[in-house]
Amino acid sequence: MKLFPFKSIDGSVTAPQGFRAAGAFCDIKRLGTGKGSNKGQKRDLALIVSDRPAAVAGTFTTNQVCAAPVRLCIARVKRGRARAVVVNSGNANACTGRQGLRDAEAMAEITAAALASSGAPEISPLDVLVASTGRIGVALPMANVRKGILEAARLLQAAPDQAHHAAEAIMTSDTRPKEIAVEFQLGGRTARLGGICKGAGMIQPGMSPTGARPALRSLHATMLCFLTTDAAIGAKILQAALNESVAKSFNRITVDGDMSTNDTVLILANGRAGNPMLTARSADLAIFQAALDHVTLELAKKIVLDGEGVSRFVTVRLHGAKTEADADAAARAVANSLLVKTSWCGGDPNWGRILCALGYSSAALVESGVDVGYSLPGSQKILYSLKWGRATNVPFKALCRITTARQFDLHIHLHQGRASAWIYSGDLTEAYVDFNKGDINDPSSLGG
Amino acid sequence: MKLFPFKSIDGSVTAPQGFRAAGAFCDIKRLGTGKGSNKGQKRDLALIVSDRPAAVAGTFTTNQVCAAPVRLCIARVKRGRARAVVVNSGNANACTGRQGLRDAEAMAEITAAALASSGAPEISPLDVLVASTGRIGVALPMANVRKGILEAARLLQAAPDQAHHAAEAIMTSDTRPKEIAVEFQLGGRTARLGGICKGAGMIQPGMSPTGARPALRSLHATMLCFLTTDAAIGAKILQAALNESVAKSFNRITVDGDMSTNDTVLILANGRAGNPMLTARSADLAIFQAALDHVTLELAKKIVLDGEGVSRFVTVRLHGAKTEADADAAARAVANSLLVKTSWCGGDPNWGRILCALGYSSAALVESGVDVGYSLPGSQKILYSLKWGRATNVPFKALCRITTARQFDLHIHLHQGRASAWIYSGDLTEAYVDFNKGDINDPSSLGG
Repeated sequence: MKLFPFKSIDGSVTAPQGFRAAGAFCDIKRLGTGKGSNKGQKRDLALIVSDRPAAVAGTFTTNQVCAAPVRLCIARVKRGRARAVVVNSGNANACTGRQGLRDAEAMAEITAAALASSGAPEISPLDVLVASTGRIGVALPMANVRKGILEAARLLQAAPDQAHHAAEAIMTSDTRPKEIAVEFQLGGRTARLGGICKGAGMIQPGMSPTGARPALRSLHATMLCFLTTDAAIGAKILQAALNESVAKSFNRITVDGDMSTNDTVLILANGRAGNPMLTARSADLAIFQAALDHVTLELAKKIVLDGEGVSRFVTVRLHGAKTEADADAAARAVANSLLVKTSWCGGDPNWGRILCALGYSSAALVESGVDVGYSLPGSQKILYSLKWGRATNVPFKALCRITTARQFDLHIHLHQGRASAWIYSGDLTEAYVDFNKGDINDPSSLGG
Repeated sequence: MKLFPFKSIDGSVTAPQGFRAAGAFCDIKRLGTGKGSNKGQKRDLALIVSDRPAAVAGTFTTNQVCAAPVRLCIARVKRGRARAVVVNSGNANACTGRQGLRDAEAMAEITAAALASSGAPEISPLDVLVASTGRIGVALPMANVRKGILEAARLLQAAPDQAHHAAEAIMTSDTRPKEIAVEFQLGGRTARLGGICKGAGMIQPGMSPTGARPALRSLHATMLCFLTTDAAIGAKILQAALNESVAKSFNRITVDGDMSTNDTVLILANGRAGNPMLTARSADLAIFQAALDHVTLELAKKIVLDGEGVSRFVTVRLHGAKTEADADAAARAVANSLLVKTSWCGGDPNWGRILCALGYSSAALVESGVDVGYSLPGSQKILYSLKWGRATNVPFKALCRITTARQFDLHIHLHQGRASAWIYSGDLTEAYVDFNKGDINDPSSLGG
């Protein structure tokens, strides 16, 4: 297999055959809070539709307080098939009790009805998945949501490829839409995989397929990701492939260490590429996995790069831990330490705070066994500030040339064993605080 | 026993009989970094001395990366007796390897020699305890430290009561010295207990008597606290009393969730009050414990109130958890959540973020079983924003009247059991980020 058995192409969720998408504006946020403005009427309702039944897989937040749409999806994804996804931004439909669940179900029903009346073949409401992001604890303004869904269905009929508008409609504090697509060959047929995602704050996903907590707990904004492919693949294998990709991408990012109530990744595979159905034994499964790994990782990185207030993207690479759990705990302690994150903000190659965070993590280590180094992404040249617990004589200015870059890698070696882990993180800036403190005189400024 | 079997008095560590203290300036910070200024020559070396051997007890950071003076103290406190404490600010003597341990030992030796030559009876260097706070990973400028110790010893001889200068000398980013003293009766004799402390960032202490991690792990700036009493009490009982007080005070505060490499609390009891020696069976032990509880709690609160950038002091009161560990985990998840702390900065009574943080904590809970309420300190009137997982109709403005106060209490009830916990926390502000990002062109601005 080639290292990259796929090529990047333009587009996102409508790049694969048989998918349509659209985004509409229905003013969910302003009505949810009763005040404030929605500048420029930013789209806030997205529809993604497959023209035939698709296999489906998903991963969901492991937060015990999980939103109504997450509960709905966990149950429906188990059925293994879906036709459409409806998503709103501006309101998370979280902590909204039974009304929330009824509203999530109603979103699916309205979508199914709207699509049917727009001339598509009959869709069961059970084949519609739902996602929400935005303010917590406020009931969805359902009259608006209904208008938005009808409008999106109308737009979808008028022009099937408005994926860019769907990518805009799922944004909250994101400053730009996040889209990607790739193309690859499966058994002589050309297949495609595309995706959109959002997420800027309340970001440290720790998702599992059922919302049950995985062995490696990760305590981590709402991120939503919707993937489509025209590859032919069964739901079970699709779920296994998604689990593997999410573990290496979305579950390895942190912006602020707060795991959301709404984190959701969904993938629909409609088989329109016409390849022989991928099974666990297909040689081509590795190609699909590589494409999925690439798409999820690139989307995950876009979330951190566009994280609330983030001015620097730091990849924490932790090596030499005794166990996988130790590696994960040590990398997350560093990636989430306020003092480490503020030092990154200043471009300061401060190893003291890093050592301090490692020391209070649950990972086994000895001070005299720790290396700390820095490199620019893609460069093999690591400059070490600390070797075996002792400061090196690498000049402070040379280290700063790396740590003042927009992106750099932080290498930590514990010399305790062979386990490693990596976390994609960002710095903590005044802009993050300013954005999230909001303004109580303008409740629409108050986040989820 | 009266509710408060003690009265507040002026002073701090020299309020008890037989203690002297002083603070000197020896320019440790500037020399440690080679650049920058120490505005107004802030004192940076403190001495506290008992005129006779004292029983001693201590608690220390459980960070695996712990500073040389902490290692020294852990070993020496086990001996049960001490005469003096020498403390420097501006340099933590952490991550300084063997040289660091030699320097900490040298600080004790120089102190013993300086006190002897100033006319005090011979003191063994082993009876001198050492503490440091400041930048991590830079060797102590020992020539300056020596000058500072000699100067402090000279000042001590000139005027024995300069406790206020000692309180200033241990400050780093603190904006004000922190001092307290109380007086109480033990067996017909008047005894006193006084203390000084510091701490503003890198604050979430999780201390134990031996530096070994306690069952209830707490992940939490350097805080230093030095306590003196003229009560007669043995080292073992003193340690047990200190453990109990620290568990209810310093180990319950958080500024930024970063547990320091240097957290230290020391108490010296010299028996000059002449009370009958307190034992485990003494009825008067409860009076001593109440006094110690009060002093440690008031000092701990001062640390949060003066925390880096802190504009609001919030007491998180968590009730109804299934287990003590759950209660502690839930309270800390809320107290350390960046999104919750930034909402406090804005004075926003945001229960959605609180529920989100509770949900990703390891504490067992159900969304429909959570109450969230607010009160002003000392007031019995709690205004609930959430009851059994449902938003109440208490007006937003009424809640804001509480959450925009300089201090308020946050009440959370999980309705899962009978365990409770409380954590003293502060908000996260732009000032915190600004302070801690430092300026790489002025290395003296870069923190520990």
